[in-house]
Amino acid sequence: MYELHFAVPMAGAVLCTLNSRLDSAMVSVLLAHSEAKILFVDHGLLEIARGAFDHLAKTNTKPPILVLISEGDDDPSPTNIVPYEYESFLETGHIEFEIKRPKSEWDPISVNYTSGTTSRPKGVVYSHRGAYLNTIATLFLHGMQSMPVYLWTVPMFHCNGWCLTWGVAAQGGTNICMKNVSPSKIFENIALHNVTHMGGAPTVLNMIVNSSVREQKRISSKVVICTGGSPPPPQILLKMEELGFSVTHLYGLTETYGPGTYCVLKPEWESLPPEEQSKLKARQGTQHLGLQDVDILDPVTMEKVPADGKTMGEVMFRGNTVMSGYFKDSKATEEAFKGGWFHSGDLAVKHPDGYIEVTDRLKDIIISGGENISTIQVETVLYSHPAVLEAAVVARPDNHWGQTPCAFVKLKEGFDIDAQELILFCRGHLPHYMAPKTVIFEELPRTSTGKIQKYILREKAKALGSLS
Amino acid sequence: MYELHFAVPMAGAVLCTLNSRLDSAMVSVLLAHSEAKILFVDHGLLEIARGAFDHLAKTNTKPPILVLISEGDDDPSPTNIVPYEYESFLETGHIEFEIKRPKSEWDPISVNYTSGTTSRPKGVVYSHRGAYLNTIATLFLHGMQSMPVYLWTVPMFHCNGWCLTWGVAAQGGTNICMKNVSPSKIFENIALHNVTHMGGAPTVLNMIVNSSVREQKRISSKVVICTGGSPPPPQILLKMEELGFSVTHLYGLTETYGPGTYCVLKPEWESLPPEEQSKLKARQGTQHLGLQDVDILDPVTMEKVPADGKTMGEVMFRGNTVMSGYFKDSKATEEAFKGGWFHSGDLAVKHPDGYIEVTDRLKDIIISGGENISTIQVETVLYSHPAVLEAAVVARPDNHWGQTPCAFVKLKEGFDIDAQELILFCRGHLPHYMAPKTVIFEELPRTSTGKIQKYILREKAKALGSLS
Repeated sequence: MYELHFAVPMAGAVLCTLNSRLDSAMVSVLLAHSEAKILFVDHGLLEIARGAFDHLAKTNTKPPILVLISEGDDDPSPTNIVPYEYESFLETGHIEFEIKRPKSEWDPISVNYTSGTTSRPKGVVYSHRGAYLNTIATLFLHGMQSMPVYLWTVPMFHCNGWCLTWGVAAQGGTNICMKNVSPSKIFENIALHNVTHMGGAPTVLNMIVNSSVREQKRISSKVVICTGGSPPPPQILLKMEELGFSVTHLYGLTETYGPGTYCVLKPEWESLPPEEQSKLKARQGTQHLGLQDVDILDPVTMEKVPADGKTMGEVMFRGNTVMSGYFKDSKATEEAFKGGWFHSGDLAVKHPDGYIEVTDRLKDIIISGGENISTIQVETVLYSHPAVLEAAVVARPDNHWGQTPCAFVKLKEGFDIDAQELILFCRGHLPHYMAPKTVIFEELPRTSTGKIQKYILREKAKALGSLS
Repeated sequence: MYELHFAVPMAGAVLCTLNSRLDSAMVSVLLAHSEAKILFVDHGLLEIARGAFDHLAKTNTKPPILVLISEGDDDPSPTNIVPYEYESFLETGHIEFEIKRPKSEWDPISVNYTSGTTSRPKGVVYSHRGAYLNTIATLFLHGMQSMPVYLWTVPMFHCNGWCLTWGVAAQGGTNICMKNVSPSKIFENIALHNVTHMGGAPTVLNMIVNSSVREQKRISSKVVICTGGSPPPPQILLKMEELGFSVTHLYGLTETYGPGTYCVLKPEWESLPPEEQSKLKARQGTQHLGLQDVDILDPVTMEKVPADGKTMGEVMFRGNTVMSGYFKDSKATEEAFKGGWFHSGDLAVKHPDGYIEVTDRLKDIIISGGENISTIQVETVLYSHPAVLEAAVVARPDNHWGQTPCAFVKLKEGFDIDAQELILFCRGHLPHYMAPKTVIFEELPRTSTGKIQKYILREKAKALGSLS
């Protein structure tokens, strides 16, 4: 996939990386929607591809050419199965092949499908211009100097690996790839390759922080780890630093080529108590060097909210590193860009220093008795409880209050507390109306990129019915 | 000047910084040519400005509005002399002033006059787009991470300070400015402000290397120093590293916004002997991330020379970080861009690894008995002699050979050697025909940016007449 980030655009084609955890049905929908001409398939995913081709056959859709990426000798001989095998396919290429540069810098370089349903896939189109600028900006916010060593935990099918696929090459760096992400593998690779930088969804941070001492290895020089997706709870930030990581908090969406803002640490924060520092570090910060504007606007009036750290609005972006649009969906594109800004769907406040702080997803916010409750704020309190490994808060319908907060919690191994104890803990740290009224202990459903699937939890909370 | 790098473009105007060592006559020519509307003048240069205004009056040219930048209490009361004084002028501004952004990213941001004659000033036009991209690229090649401390020895009127005026701000850095550059001031500022980066023409490196131990201060953590203008002799590179500097060699012209290429050190060089390393580090290297192309072409056929490290051609550039053109001089612009590339006027070879190495200025090369002699190569040998402080080689006309190499040399204090000794030394390290036939000991004439003025030396050599 790394090689194809260069080969495909250099052949004048558009790259469309697919999430390796999708099923055949979803893959077939994306192959049809993207009108893919060639499909490169890792040997471990061949059955998924076969299934997708079966789906395509049912609708009489012409399948793409299949190129198998085999690995090692124990693979079945590829020639019996598929017409092309990657390495031998490469051998048919010409060394004198002249790079097909884009005619316009606005030409597409890639299409990235956001996690969605089969009924209406959203293909986010990246341009060469945007990808160049976001690559540069991402290098800056990682603080990636010449010849970095990057450990891949961010999937390359996720915003083209936050554009670091191109970025690591631009800085003459080394890429360390892992088939599976585990704490011991992470520590092992850091020690073995002198990793300088890595990325990771909050779930990766969580995994590292909660790893056993046996799995951990001493980190000789600080590893910069950039995290995005959702704001890291202060407790996790603190623990990561103790383990030898320097955490940078990024924020963005597939529509902003991955990172769009980052939380630059201010020198004056250093004298603050660690708890206070971690809170500040969990902010989404300011736009990076490649982005024209990020701001918090009232989505109805399109006016900027005051920078008071209190007034909520929607995070909106504009500039070169915002997508060209959704592929073959001008209606969704128009909606997303209503009023000349890209609407993120995230709610946030703007602090007096200009730093933004995401308070919730527009669709996640809970309205209880007319009061807005930020689920992120409640989750942060839950994470500060020593027994809590993971937590997610959603709305539970309520006849009296409209909605009440409902927490889904996974406890750390060896801990055993009950719902009431956790509710009381939250009441001790939050206004009463914000504390969960319901706590359910269970495994949390996640997407392949580590995001908690709140829509599943919302369905569960809905099924519970009203409390009052 | 630093503030004006932001204020002027944000007011929708074009910045034109003038070399502070120009005389009144030259300043008046540039004021007229640039059609400047406002002239900001440091109090120390007020007399030059007055003189320039007198020149303008003689040709009935309307002078620009003058704003005096006064400093300290001992200045003459500015109101008696000029209509505006900088600080009080600023006070008349409005805090709500809305930034006037360029209509097109190709709109000019600045005009930089190259050192030329009064008869035909060359105003190099920079665009917003080019300046943005070169700023970013310059940050990368300096390895400037968040919040650097930059010591200014590069004049800000020189390619807008290699675009680092904007660059240091982009990284939230600290600017350390000096009125006058001296070794003791350099070491003092490094120690006082924990300088992380600085720049400097070879003359600054020379100054540092040849400073007395009394002037030097211990450098606690490596200072990255970027040098351009002419390739630093290996001996100077070596000595700089011993003193605690990490030298990066840049190359470019005013027409390429300052740095266009840089010599990235390769890990495999580390095992080479120091002398060999220094030779490799003196190469001009490869293009930076903001430039589309640099290559060595035959200026007649416009074909690329082979990457054999031997075949000479002219260094040519193309891309976003090459000037928009010469202001009000379409003829010179056309000439400079003949064949779709910007012609640098520098001769170079391309090594098999793609690194370029400048061998001479097109107009500096000596042709003796039909053989090309690279003056840089001869100068490098001269610099390796322990008694030589500065050296420059030019052509002396010759009835028999056409031209012969003539060296102008300044010796280090306390050294006394004669021409014959130096000629023999060169013969020991070069083919005989390349060794200087004439050596003249004297102070070398330099431009304000530290470049040796070879045209003055060429005139002197010409006046000597033929040797044979």
